[in-house]
Amino acid sequence: MENKRLEDQIKFIVEIDRLKRIFRQNVVIGTIEQENDAEHSWHMAVMAILLSEYASEEINILRVLKMILIHDLVEIHAGDTFCYDEKGNVDKFVREQKSANQLFSLLPSDQAEEIMDLWHEFEAMETPESKFAASLDRLQPLLLNYNTNGHTWKKPGVTSEKVLKRNSVLENPVPQLWDLAKEIIEDSINKGYLKKE
Amino acid sequence: MENKRLEDQIKFIVEIDRLKRIFRQNVVIGTIEQENDAEHSWHMAVMAILLSEYASEEINILRVLKMILIHDLVEIHAGDTFCYDEKGNVDKFVREQKSANQLFSLLPSDQAEEIMDLWHEFEAMETPESKFAASLDRLQPLLLNYNTNGHTWKKPGVTSEKVLKRNSVLENPVPQLWDLAKEIIEDSINKGYLKKE
Repeated sequence: MENKRLEDQIKFIVEIDRLKRIFRQNVVIGTIEQENDAEHSWHMAVMAILLSEYASEEINILRVLKMILIHDLVEIHAGDTFCYDEKGNVDKFVREQKSANQLFSLLPSDQAEEIMDLWHEFEAMETPESKFAASLDRLQPLLLNYNTNGHTWKKPGVTSEKVLKRNSVLENPVPQLWDLAKEIIEDSINKGYLKKE
Repeated sequence: MENKRLEDQIKFIVEIDRLKRIFRQNVVIGTIEQENDAEHSWHMAVMAILLSEYASEEINILRVLKMILIHDLVEIHAGDTFCYDEKGNVDKFVREQKSANQLFSLLPSDQAEEIMDLWHEFEAMETPESKFAASLDRLQPLLLNYNTNGHTWKKPGVTSEKVLKRNSVLENPVPQLWDLAKEIIEDSINKGYLKKE
């Protein structure tokens, strides 16, 4: 290939195919297959399109979608860290930053910078867009767990208090979705999907 | 839930989880696992972000992303039709339209209409956005096949002529990517991934 820029872009595109092999804690509804990060990112992106009307602040939906589509790429080298694994979360950011440097540097520098900036914005949760994206990053697995009899919530160390705290990210960015999340958590306790604590 | 609109949106979001179980002909690189439509849609969406500079006409990238993210939802009821299966492709649109009616009607009517319009636009391949999206719908599996020793191309009835014809969709919307596709096909013939015909 004569075009070095396109060559680099294609190398990156082929490399990120690996996101389809990074498995998460929850399972796909109606199966015993663990969901992977590519599926999760796609699902969140469709949710963003359909639920943007619930954002309490004005959001740029294009930036939200870009952020969502790339937010888990760093797990290609760093792996998925279970959100209720306190030990794993101690060095999570360091591992992921290293992974980001390695992965994004495959791209032409302008695009590497854009993707890195989007990822940092997502992680910092300071802008309306990243708060909205982070909310969907909580709500998506909540919906999956609710529809798989609380699959992930059966793992050691998970309690309703922790699930509620993790989902409280939704409170200000998407108040109506926060009410929904609380309803789901309450109902999950009643149904025995989630241990009350 | 008191909010009927949100309830419908959530039902739809849970229903489309099934896209993760609609399997395609190609495999994920480095595995023997068939790729599914959710993974494929995610991969195409990231490609759209990175390769938009090659579009020969101005495109609205937000509309491209929306179109890509929903373009295969109709396969939830209609199933994946192998692009080189001439018989299966005869009634493909009818089956998919029926599936679209059934699936999209779960949504509030304004959103059902938006998604239906996007899907029709994608299928018609008449706008710059849908031509660009359709091009990526060809290029993504081409890249996967090239990186899995021509996995899908070993199936009965597949020849280099058919693969070239299918990818010729790229010619006008993304000329540089069309050159790349031709290079990949040529190299695949040389490497024995694809039968010359």
